[in-house]
Amino acid sequence: MPYRLCPVDINRDEQFRPAFLAISPNNRMPAIVDHDPADGGGPLSVFESGAILIYLAEKTGRFLPSGMRGRELALQWLFWQVGGLGPMLGQKNHFKRKAPEGLAYAVDRYVKEAQRLYGVLDRHLKGRDHVADEFSIADMAIYPWLVTARRNGDDFAPFAEITRYLDVIGARAGVRGAYARALEPPYPQA
Amino acid sequence: MPYRLCPVDINRDEQFRPAFLAISPNNRMPAIVDHDPADGGGPLSVFESGAILIYLAEKTGRFLPSGMRGRELALQWLFWQVGGLGPMLGQKNHFKRKAPEGLAYAVDRYVKEAQRLYGVLDRHLKGRDHVADEFSIADMAIYPWLVTARRNGDDFAPFAEITRYLDVIGARAGVRGAYARALEPPYPQA
Repeated sequence: MPYRLCPVDINRDEQFRPAFLAISPNNRMPAIVDHDPADGGGPLSVFESGAILIYLAEKTGRFLPSGMRGRELALQWLFWQVGGLGPMLGQKNHFKRKAPEGLAYAVDRYVKEAQRLYGVLDRHLKGRDHVADEFSIADMAIYPWLVTARRNGDDFAPFAEITRYLDVIGARAGVRGAYARALEPPYPQA
Repeated sequence: MPYRLCPVDINRDEQFRPAFLAISPNNRMPAIVDHDPADGGGPLSVFESGAILIYLAEKTGRFLPSGMRGRELALQWLFWQVGGLGPMLGQKNHFKRKAPEGLAYAVDRYVKEAQRLYGVLDRHLKGRDHVADEFSIADMAIYPWLVTARRNGDDFAPFAEITRYLDVIGARAGVRGAYARALEPPYPQA
């Protein structure tokens, strides 16, 4: 689908501008505005990555299995990323990279939780190429956190299934294209 | 709907038993097993609170608005709880109550984030009795965290809309009944 990327510069506190808060009341990115929603009722905004993924999957009829069990599997792991992998890796990054020195307890807490979460995912991926039965919004939610964690130095060698999964998902044309665009500034301006 | 409550005793590491992990691979509560799923394909398990709420809402046709915009509003705030309010209040509780002394930086981080999140919700609730346009799974996800935060000493007096909201939701017969049962051990045994 065609889209227009609208960067929000947090170095300029643009996330607190009223026009942005009207779209994303939690002052976070990403958020989207659909100018052609199915109900024809004018622009519809959606914030929270998980809600955006479900919205786009349902709008397009893609990347969320239509069968009840496949859909439930994808949604469970989507929520696992939103409520676990995302926030816990976020806290790990903060205490390892941004917080003052000497907070070994906090660093250890989140390093251990990351290892636990990696173990959970690794066991789930045994015999699977995707988190659900096919490529889905659960993979779209989970994969980028793993890529970033690896780039930040996390060792996935002990997690053979995750290592394989990273190769499988990373080889997709859509994923490769998205990363190529994301990593090539200057970003399109709003 | 009829249900049977199956307590999982984390003091005995019951969350790591293979039979429980088969239902909840992330070794967390809650998780459910539906013994009468719509597809007639035998027991279906669901983990992650957010996924459980969506599953039960869709199974019963209740508490998730059917209109596209109402549904999206409920889902956005459900994800806001799962990815923000829940994990951040969880970290606040940990560092305030369980972590060793001297981690003032971490306590301050999460106290401030809780205040930010309360402010976001308070602004959203202006003119609303519910997070979405009617009582929904978003309220079911958010309300208990606020109740627990208040019980743990958080002051909601500066958040007039949240204070009102707590009264509105807390007055519902279903909510009162749920809390009455939850607070009355002994819990039913599996």
